[in-house]
Amino acid sequence: MDNAVSMDESRAVPRVATGESSLSRAVRVLEAFTSDEPELGVTEVARRAGLHVATASRIVGQLAGHGLLERAPDRRVRIGMRMWELASRASPTRSLRDAAMPYLEDLHAVVGHHAQLAVLEGDEVLFLERLSARDAVVNFSRIAGRLPLHVSSSGTVLLAFGPQELQERVLARPLERYTDATVTSPARLRATLEQVRRQGWVLLPGHVHEDAAGVAVPVRNGLGEVVAALSVIVPNDERAPSAVPVLLATARGIGRSLTVGGGA
Amino acid sequence: MDNAVSMDESRAVPRVATGESSLSRAVRVLEAFTSDEPELGVTEVARRAGLHVATASRIVGQLAGHGLLERAPDRRVRIGMRMWELASRASPTRSLRDAAMPYLEDLHAVVGHHAQLAVLEGDEVLFLERLSARDAVVNFSRIAGRLPLHVSSSGTVLLAFGPQELQERVLARPLERYTDATVTSPARLRATLEQVRRQGWVLLPGHVHEDAAGVAVPVRNGLGEVVAALSVIVPNDERAPSAVPVLLATARGIGRSLTVGGGA
Repeated sequence: MDNAVSMDESRAVPRVATGESSLSRAVRVLEAFTSDEPELGVTEVARRAGLHVATASRIVGQLAGHGLLERAPDRRVRIGMRMWELASRASPTRSLRDAAMPYLEDLHAVVGHHAQLAVLEGDEVLFLERLSARDAVVNFSRIAGRLPLHVSSSGTVLLAFGPQELQERVLARPLERYTDATVTSPARLRATLEQVRRQGWVLLPGHVHEDAAGVAVPVRNGLGEVVAALSVIVPNDERAPSAVPVLLATARGIGRSLTVGGGA
Repeated sequence: MDNAVSMDESRAVPRVATGESSLSRAVRVLEAFTSDEPELGVTEVARRAGLHVATASRIVGQLAGHGLLERAPDRRVRIGMRMWELASRASPTRSLRDAAMPYLEDLHAVVGHHAQLAVLEGDEVLFLERLSARDAVVNFSRIAGRLPLHVSSSGTVLLAFGPQELQERVLARPLERYTDATVTSPARLRATLEQVRRQGWVLLPGHVHEDAAGVAVPVRNGLGEVVAALSVIVPNDERAPSAVPVLLATARGIGRSLTVGGGA
């Protein structure tokens, strides 16, 4: 059955047995799973991956055989523990995360709500770690989640200290609006980036959600390069700016740890 | 060049174009990277994956094309950010981890050293999360790292409350020694497991490393099932047992969060 499906596809799309197409389809299957919907039926996997159900079913079976996917008790499919293990034990950001975690805990203990570590990934901000209090203010970011650079305080810091080409690319595109406060004018974003570079931090009150303010600072390695953004998400009120000094001090601590350990 | 290599291999090991073999080899390449050696040259990848260098090079190129691997500035290869993102955003343990994190932070703030969350994975204990103080006692566990069940306090708890078949399987095998204190006699391990089930916690002084003591308790979901182990690693002295009450209380808090959120 499995072979028949595959042979049929081989006839439809002739190709040599390099396996490239097979790996691409496996990646598309893995990409079907998101934080909002971590468990999917095979039919839904097929729809999202743009594959025939029989093909998706075969690839799911192969990935499950390697532990990269696993089946929930209700037969729906999810990312497997082995996939998480392979990705996490040698994660490219492990040394950054290891250096930052004790400081992130201290920051979170003092400021409360959400404390976050994020990096530039493609043209977006990718959140590596987030510590959240049980009664914290609303926060759209998630661990391993992304946001557009111009919307979030972390993204704005990474954009301000990022490559010139990236800034021009982002400024040339439509800037998505999340709230009335989101920066959607290229001129205003350009001025904000200039200000962030000058003052070394950013406060974005209500840019992602009306009730929350993001405050972010850059984390620099031993060479002075910005390798991450450190941020807190706090209630959108007059106390938000008081997070700036502790953020700046914490980012320096992380940077010193990176230098000592030689990491990131 | 790439095709030539692939065709050559197809002749050596005839197979239909199911892509199964291709995916298996991609997994072997991904498995080459460990926490101790997160960056490898292609030759070393080939050696560890048991592949010809040209084949390994081609698979590395394909995986890098999808962002599952990436090249360090020195051309060595490491796990890619996209791999971490795909594995983490829909991780099978995300709801458990999200529920546990605030409690793990509280536990760590009170006890210091290392606070850890672990699950049973195959016949080993897999550490999902670890918070460590900057001056903490030595600890062999790592995030996304494994230890044999009988050696660590987390593993001993998971084994004690695990399936009967698993206990018999572990008891029937040689029990690896880490220190003079490690339990290596099946009779003694059986007695320890019985005691853990009776008292609901375990203290293993110096079983992994002479200088450290592990203290662990089970985390139960709303159905009373043990879904994880919560542990601290502290200096191996007379104060270690004082961690038991706070561990038991913290595990109950996590369990209540799991019930409320319906997670894990």
